[in-house]
Parts: sequence; C-alpha cells; structure tokens
Amino acid sequence: MAPAPFINKTDAQKGHVAGGCGAWSVPLQVQPIGTGCPHGSTAPSCPQVGDITILVNNAAVVHGKSLMDSDDDALLKSQHVNTLGQFWTTKAFLPRMLELQNGHIVCLNSVLALSAIPGAIDYCTSKASAFAFMESLTLGLLDCPGVSATTVLPFHTSTEMFQGMRVRFPNLFPPLKPETVARRTVEAVQQNQALLLLPWTMNILVILKSILPQAALEEIHRFSGTYTCMNTFKGRT
Amino acid sequence: MAPAPFINKTDAQKGHVAGGCGAWSVPLQVQPIGTGCPHGSTAPSCPQVGDITILVNNAAVVHGKSLMDSDDDALLKSQHVNTLGQFWTTKAFLPRMLELQNGHIVCLNSVLALSAIPGAIDYCTSKASAFAFMESLTLGLLDCPGVSATTVLPFHTSTEMFQGMRVRFPNLFPPLKPETVARRTVEAVQQNQALLLLPWTMNILVILKSILPQAALEEIHRFSGTYTCMNTFKGRT
Repeated sequence: MAPAPFINKTDAQKGHVAGGCGAWSVPLQVQPIGTGCPHGSTAPSCPQVGDITILVNNAAVVHGKSLMDSDDDALLKSQHVNTLGQFWTTKAFLPRMLELQNGHIVCLNSVLALSAIPGAIDYCTSKASAFAFMESLTLGLLDCPGVSATTVLPFHTSTEMFQGMRVRFPNLFPPLKPETVARRTVEAVQQNQALLLLPWTMNILVILKSILPQAALEEIHRFSGTYTCMNTFKGRT
Repeated sequence: MAPAPFINKTDAQKGHVAGGCGAWSVPLQVQPIGTGCPHGSTAPSCPQVGDITILVNNAAVVHGKSLMDSDDDALLKSQHVNTLGQFWTTKAFLPRMLELQNGHIVCLNSVLALSAIPGAIDYCTSKASAFAFMESLTLGLLDCPGVSATTVLPFHTSTEMFQGMRVRFPNLFPPLKPETVARRTVEAVQQNQALLLLPWTMNILVILKSILPQAALEEIHRFSGTYTCMNTFKGRT
C-alpha cells in the first residue's frame, strides 16, 4: 500500500479529513512555549494514517502590532508556532521520508516573509525565518532522491486571520480565496515546484525590492497603504 | 551633556571601551533561554553611560549544521540570541530614544539572512528573522523624528565565528576584515543609511536571486560552493 499523505497542523485544535485531497488533518499537541520540542517521542507515531509522505506546515498565529505595542508573550508565541513548530514537525517526519525516498515538505508561508510591514512585526519575523528554513532545507534535499520541498507565499488571503486589515487598492490587489491557495499549493507539490508566489504579480514586487533604493521602497509602502494597513486589524474575534 | 553612545551585546561576556569610537561595550545579562525577556526591569538602567542613543545589536551564535544534524537546544539558542535578543534590547532602549528624539538602532546581520545555505540552518533562519525585524522597525520609525535604524549585511568576515568555512573562490570573494565592517557600519550610521550590504557585489547576488529560476539558483549554489561550504566548519574552538 502506498504511504498515505498527511496534513499536519502544529497547534491544530481538531482534526478532519480534507475533502477531495486524500489528506488528513491530524491534531498534534506541541509542548508549551519555551520548553523544547515535541519530536522524537510523540510526533512520528501516527498509526491512523500510516507512513507520512506529505507534511504541510500551515498553522500560524498573528499578533499584528508594531514592536513597541507588542506583548512579549505574543511575540514569543508567533516565533514558536510559526517558525519553531516547523523545525520540530519537519525533524519528526523527514527521517522516514528520507528512508522511503518518498516525501514532500510543504510550508504555507506569506509574502510578508519577503517584505516586512511595521504593523505585524511578530508575523513578519517568524515568516521570514520560516522562509529561510525552507530555503536551507530545499537546498539540503538536493541530493536526496524522492524527497523535496515547496514554499508557498500567498498575498492576503480572505480568512479570519487578518480580519480588519485594509489594503489601499483592494480592486488592484484583491484578497486570495483560500480555495485558490489550496489548489495552487497542490499543483505546486505535484510539479515539485520549490517556490510559489501568489498572485504572480508578487514576483514583480520582489524584483522591485531588490533594485530600488530604500527611499523609493518607503514611498511605495506609504502609497500602497502597507505602511498603515494593520491599523484597522482585528484578527480572529 | 550629549547622551553617550552605547554598544550592547546581548550575551556579552565582558565589557570594554571600543577604541576611537566613543562607544562602550557593556555586558548585559539576559535571562536563560526560553524563560522570557530581560527588558523592563534591568536593561534600561545604565548609569555608567547615561542615556543610550546608539544600540548596536552585534552578538550572535552559530551552530552550523543542517536541520537533521542540528541539536535542538542549539537551534533554539540561535533563535534566542540572534533574533529574540534583538527584540528585547530594542524594546528596552527604544522608548528613551523616542522620548529624546535622538537614537539609532544598528543590527549587525549577515548576507545569509537573504540567501540561506543548507549547512547553517540555525544561523540563516535567525538572521532572516532579524532582517525582517529591522525592516519592520525601520518602516515603523519613519514618522519618528531623530530615531532611525541601520541593518548591516556583511559577507563572511575573518573572525573565529565561521572558522573552517570554505568558499570555493576565496580570491574572488575574500573574507571581510572586521575593521572594514566596523568602519563601514559607523559610516552608514552617520549617513542614516537603512541598509548596507558588504561588499557591494552582494547587491548583484540579491538582484540575481530575485529574477533567476530556482534551478539556476541551485546550480549557482553548487558551483560557488555555498552548498558545501559548511562541511569543513569548525567555529570557535
């Protein structure tokens, strides 16, 4: 029997079968913040789904404030869930994938990993770290046949997570539908694509960011509204 | 009397006066890893130097291994010293700078923040996070007169930190001298420069990275030797 694919959430509250994808979302209890990591003893044992060959690190939290407005515990929580959680889940499941020569690590990240904004310092720092994590991992897997990695960097997605966030030109940059992100992620995994920016226009922003001087970038941030977009942020209610 | 400049090391072992810069390196004892942050109670009180108007976050550690070879505690330590340490020192000293309308936050980062390599996943992730931290902070300070930030991203510097690391073309990319990094950092602060890549050729790498496909980047990593440069890493002995 082929190993079953698996969707993991580092801090999932409940498990469910994701419709039509042949994937399971199974809750894993991570240890409390700051006390270590869960892998080694608990994570690899998932008898209900067999060998795990696709790990999707999707769980994240956002505090959504600037540095001086941020609560210390909230800053720490974002680092632990959004970044360190991926260290531990990947360390837990990757060895068996390497053994089977069959596996894929997926990271649902954000374009904010590549372009930080002042109103969500916890989220931007943790996502940038997770981006580097996947970049390092992807290169490290080059000589590991059958095992690869995909990083997805979507623009604002219309979930409750960033509720209240307001972009200045919503018609020009409409929020992505979660279904679109999910479909494009599955396609990227099928095609062994290492990096996926959504929508494709985000590639232009990345190029502009690499060539424009800081003063120009600051004006773009002011003009586009990313500078103040989190002022109306509410998050999950 | 003008406020005295100050150089802080988050995990400094000893303090000393940096020659010729009018700067002090003063040890601060951070709390043990994972238990919280030091600011609020201890950090802002530095009677020996008066008001602190320049904070240089320079301290960092490197484990220098791939994910599966990494020790969990070492992974955590890099995040706490290299990233979270900057959160706490900045939160400690920034309020007084804002009050005085006179201050500068400096982050000694690394080009590895922008281009992760497989052999130092702890360092790359923490430096990427610190980069996003400074990017978010810099934008957040746009409307704060007299207070600004500088991020320095040097290539391999000839200190003991990355002892044993071997680049393939050392004549083309010679290691930087610490004195050069220090001098250029001071100049960047004097000119209120938000971002400084050293040497300037690193700007080309950043642009190439934003436009080249993943397969090409992987070949560059293989050819340039960054893919395996940490295989001979020894670090501090």
